[in-house]
Amino acid sequence: MPESQRIAVFDNDGTLWSERPFYFQLQYSIHRAHQLVDKHPEWRQQQPFQAALTNDIATLTAGDGKLFTQLTEATLGGTSITDYHAAVNRWLATSRHPRFKRPYTDLVFQPMLELLAYLKANRFRTYIVSGGDLEFMRAWATRVYGIPPEQIIGSRMKTRLVRKNGKAIFERLTEIEFFNNAAGKPVSIRRAIGRRPIAAFGNSDGDLQMLQWTTTGTGKRLGAIVHHTDRKREWSYDRKSRIGHLDKALDEAARNRWTVVDMKRDWKVVYPFELAK
Amino acid sequence: MPESQRIAVFDNDGTLWSERPFYFQLQYSIHRAHQLVDKHPEWRQQQPFQAALTNDIATLTAGDGKLFTQLTEATLGGTSITDYHAAVNRWLATSRHPRFKRPYTDLVFQPMLELLAYLKANRFRTYIVSGGDLEFMRAWATRVYGIPPEQIIGSRMKTRLVRKNGKAIFERLTEIEFFNNAAGKPVSIRRAIGRRPIAAFGNSDGDLQMLQWTTTGTGKRLGAIVHHTDRKREWSYDRKSRIGHLDKALDEAARNRWTVVDMKRDWKVVYPFELAK
Repeated sequence: MPESQRIAVFDNDGTLWSERPFYFQLQYSIHRAHQLVDKHPEWRQQQPFQAALTNDIATLTAGDGKLFTQLTEATLGGTSITDYHAAVNRWLATSRHPRFKRPYTDLVFQPMLELLAYLKANRFRTYIVSGGDLEFMRAWATRVYGIPPEQIIGSRMKTRLVRKNGKAIFERLTEIEFFNNAAGKPVSIRRAIGRRPIAAFGNSDGDLQMLQWTTTGTGKRLGAIVHHTDRKREWSYDRKSRIGHLDKALDEAARNRWTVVDMKRDWKVVYPFELAK
Repeated sequence: MPESQRIAVFDNDGTLWSERPFYFQLQYSIHRAHQLVDKHPEWRQQQPFQAALTNDIATLTAGDGKLFTQLTEATLGGTSITDYHAAVNRWLATSRHPRFKRPYTDLVFQPMLELLAYLKANRFRTYIVSGGDLEFMRAWATRVYGIPPEQIIGSRMKTRLVRKNGKAIFERLTEIEFFNNAAGKPVSIRRAIGRRPIAAFGNSDGDLQMLQWTTTGTGKRLGAIVHHTDRKREWSYDRKSRIGHLDKALDEAARNRWTVVDMKRDWKVVYPFELAK
């Protein structure tokens, strides 16, 4: 396989790190809502902010995701990229996951880190292709996964260049420009890379089209799904879950001979911190 | 300089190849208008098509570029990416530049090819950052410049994924989603690469912000402008030209110590075909 073709794409939430009790980025949005509410006292009576301030995740993740989008735009936009990266990293340094009482970045999957390293050693380029916000991931993913910023693809906030005191500032508006999920994933991969990957890793129906596109056609191709089956060490969920909903992609996995990774059965270690015990 | 920082960005039209008598992509649009007019007989009486069909470039490039945009959307959209690449390459194989009677891809600049090769040999990643359509360039730029598709950044047509006969098709809609010019260039570089380049090459005011952003700050940084001064071998134009308008960026070049390449004085050879003589 020529090196230029060695491209592997990875979903992030639920594939490279955990996504429970709900997306870690949403946890950051809620944190921001609490920070910003003094400036916006009306938020206490308004959705989606009221739900965010009262940890009402069911409301935030219901229906077509409209409230989720509104919250994301209001809490992740309205800042420069530089300030945003700094704020995300401050939050990562100080917040703790409610169940594990550890930094969120401790909840990456050890077997996936090993896989990323293995592919890199074999001259693959590994890309993150996530529905999460592009710059949210860029704040920490290079440090945590060793994936450079140009190999991170995500949802995008509308951004404009402004000059302040003679300096160029990239200002994130409060408007999502592209939501990188489902059929959007192949589109953004095609746009950013201009080639079809030969390996794709996901864990939910939001990865279905990426898996289909990657694995259709001739030559050696790999599709794989991380199946959350380990209630004890991580979480167990699939067809009925709102977060990490895995239903159609699980049916398609059987039909297309994608590898389904049974977390409970196949992973000796889930998180890196287990190794230090 | 660590390898990850060795990023150089190049405008395309007027920087890597010629752009006269008008952008070669516009020439392709006009070609497409002639192909499509049988299906759209009303175009003979409608702008921007009437101007395209009568080679009325002044009208097409006038004002705020609205007609140019409309023509681009109607003639470069409405096709799959695969079919589009094939059509562009058929056109490149059969059309000839009106002055040089050669394929358009013969009109790349030999010194710039040498510069691209030099940078690549020194482990730079070279990116095209053009106002031209992303997939128009991808159809040929890898072959002509040796720049891989993931290092090409351009204006983007809205694209969606559809399935036809079980195959994934990327369908280009007739709508420009992002115009990659002026302040748009730093934004798209920031988005695609996530880092600031250390070298930028342009030839017009559309490259001003990219040059400013690249050359501001600490460390070794290079900004360079290709100045079209050779009426005999290429063309001569700058401040008063509508295509390749170079005015403010020329003033800024002096202030910022950007290198201004005087094509007539500095280039022994302009086009590769001169070497074969």
